[in-house]
Order: sequence, then structure tokens, then C-alpha cells
Amino acid sequence: MIDQKHQKLLDHLHICMTKCNHCFNACLKEENVDMMAECIRLDRECAEICSYLQAAITRNSPFIKQLAAVCAEICQTCGEECNKHHHNHCQSCADACFQCAKVCKEIM
Amino acid sequence: MIDQKHQKLLDHLHICMTKCNHCFNACLKEENVDMMAECIRLDRECAEICSYLQAAITRNSPFIKQLAAVCAEICQTCGEECNKHHHNHCQSCADACFQCAKVCKEIM
Amino acid sequence: MIDQKHQKLLDHLHICMTKCNHCFNACLKEENVDMMAECIRLDRECAEICSYLQAAITRNSPFIKQLAAVCAEICQTCGEECNKHHHNHCQSCADACFQCAKVCKEIM
Amino acid sequence: MIDQKHQKLLDHLHICMTKCNHCFNACLKEENVDMMAECIRLDRECAEICSYLQAAITRNSPFIKQLAAVCAEICQTCGEECNKHHHNHCQSCADACFQCAKVCKEIM
Repeated sequence: MIDQKHQKLLDHLHICMTKCNHCFNACLKEENVDMMAECIRLDRECAEICSYLQAAITRNSPFIKQLAAVCAEICQTCGEECNKHHHNHCQSCADACFQCAKVCKEIM
Repeated sequence: MIDQKHQKLLDHLHICMTKCNHCFNACLKEENVDMMAECIRLDRECAEICSYLQAAITRNSPFIKQLAAVCAEICQTCGEECNKHHHNHCQSCADACFQCAKVCKEIM
Repeated sequence: MIDQKHQKLLDHLHICMTKCNHCFNACLKEENVDMMAECIRLDRECAEICSYLQAAITRNSPFIKQLAAVCAEICQTCGEECNKHHHNHCQSCADACFQCAKVCKEIM
Repeated sequence: MIDQKHQKLLDHLHICMTKCNHCFNACLKEENVDMMAECIRLDRECAEICSYLQAAITRNSPFIKQLAAVCAEICQTCGEECNKHHHNHCQSCADACFQCAKVCKEIM
């Protein structure tokens, strides 16, 4: 039903959504939440578009390429913000975001 | 296309989603973000279900009542958390949440 | 909380989502559903992105312009398909899609 | 980050969403689309709630149980409709829906 290229993207989108939402919750428990505000906002943005694109791929949307382009940009931006912070959840999230952005770009 | 009862709910869901997302962003800019962590989490939860239920109503979902029951509970919980904080955005959000919970219950 | 330009877009997105979902359901009740298959698929696509963009605007997403660009393309494509069919729900949906695409382009 | 019980549900939700969206598209290509109208509508409903619940689980929503209860009901209803049709995509979707409903009930 779903070809190899899109299955690879589905896998990365799921991991990225999971890491972003984990980072979102973990940031809210950090001592200096003030420092994490932008990370929290972008984690949410990134998780939302990853969820949306997963659904779009499974319904064989005619607009996967265009959506993947926006998703790549959001993942990249979120990854760069997460990468500024030393917390494990931020670093792990940044990795997932950069990987997902890369796989999105392969689809575009 | 949409009857009066559902139109009223659509209006409240839109207001509640808007207030929750405004409160989410405003909480992230407060001085003591630490105090606002639960409010931020619940604002997101509440905005998500309000968005989902709006879409479900416009597609005439056969499951509006069941979704409205869950939405009522989430709005009520979010409203109670927001109500603990004196910020204008929290108080205004709490009002919208309680109103929306009430209108959800009329549909159930 | 939401400026005039974004409020105008919110209004058009809500109308477009509502018309697309109404057209989706009405197409499924037409005698020759076979003829309406592409319209049904695109109505769903269009309703989904309109719902997503509404939520993104209310949370003041930093990616509204990029999402509006994709939304404009999806609305335009859906409007062109609906416009091929003489049913009132298709014609009314096409109008809403073209209007929404236009307002999305003003934001981009 | 995600315990075994929720991971199992995530897996079933993903399969169910995928099967429902595949069935949605395949139904629209069948000769007698008229017969498939309710299946198409319910496939969409079911895919939407499965997508929503996946996101809710990954963000550790406090409302997973309530959402899983609604999801179980939607999966069950969709499975029963799909089960009426002999097409492979409908039968395969029915299986996924019943499995997903069962796992949702284990969470409730």
C-alpha cells in the first residue's frame, strides 16, 4: 500500500513527533522553563506538522511534496532551537528533527 | 447546512481554541513560567480537542455527542487550571473554557 | 489578539472547511458517486488543511505564510475540481475555495 | 519514553489509520461507489480519530483513556461497516479496526 520511500518518511515523522512531544513535556519540567519557551513552542509546531504529514501520506494525498517542504523547514527550525540546549531530551529531539528534515527533503 | 445548536457549539469551540492558544503563548512569556507549566500543557490539550470537534461537526460526524463529552471534560479541566492564575489571559481563557464545556454538555 | 488580516483568513478558512465537508457528504449521496470520486478526495484534503491552518493561526505559528501557500494551492485545486460539477454544493464549494485561495495568497 | 502498553496502542492506531485511508481511496475507485458511501465516511472518521489519539499518546495527554473510549467505539462502528463488503481492502480494514478497538478497550 505504501512504497518504501514514503514508509521511510512515515517512520521518521513518527519518531520526530514522539521526540518533540517528549521534549515539550520535559522542557516544562526543567528548572529554568523561561529559557525553554521557544523550544516548547517549536516542539509543538513540529509535532503538529509531523502528525499532519503522517496522515496525509497514509491517505495518499496529492500534496505530499508541498507538505514535506513545509515540514522540512519546521523540523529544521525546531532542530536548531533544540540544539542550543544541553538537556538530553533537547539534543535527542534535535537529532530526530534534523533526520526528519533530511528525509522530507528527499521527497520534495 | 449546520443547525442552530451545532452553530452555537462551533462558535464556542472557536473562541475557546483561540483563547487557549493565546493563553499558551502568553504563559510562555510570563516571568514565572515554572508556575504556568500545567496551564501551558492543558491549554494545548484543550485547543487540540476544540479544533478536532469543530472539524467533526462540519463534516457531520456520527460521533459528535461522544466527542463533545470528552471535549466538555477537557475544557472543564483546563478552565479549572487557568482559573488558579490571576493573569488576564488565564482568567479570560477560564471563562471561555467553562462556557464551552457548558455548550458541549448541551449537545451530549 | 488576532489582527484584522489573520481574522479575515480565519473567517474564510472556516467557511471553506464547512463548504468542503458539506460537499464531501453531499457528493456521497449523489446518484453517480463514481463521477464525484475526485471531488470527494479533494474536499477532504481541502477541509483538512483549512482546519490545520485555522489552528496554526490561533496559536500564532511562525510558519503561517508557508502553510498559507500550501493551503492556497490545495484550495485552488479543490475549487477547480468542484467547478466541473453542476451540483449546487459543488458550485458553492468552488466559490468558497477560490475565495479562500485568494485570501491565503494575500498572507503569503 | 512510552511504556509497552501505549506503544502497542500506537502500533495498532497507525495500522488502523493506514488501512482506513487505503480503504477510503480504494472504495472511491470501486465500480459501485454508491454502495460504499457509508464505508468511505466511516473510514475517514476512523482514520481521523486514530491520528488524533496517536498524537495525544505521544504528548502524554492526561485524557488518553477518555479518547481511547471514543476511538474504540469509532473503530468498532467502522469495522462493522467494512465487514459488510467483500472487497479485500474492506475485509483487511475491518480486521485492523476490530484489533484497534480491542487494544483501545485495554487502555480504557
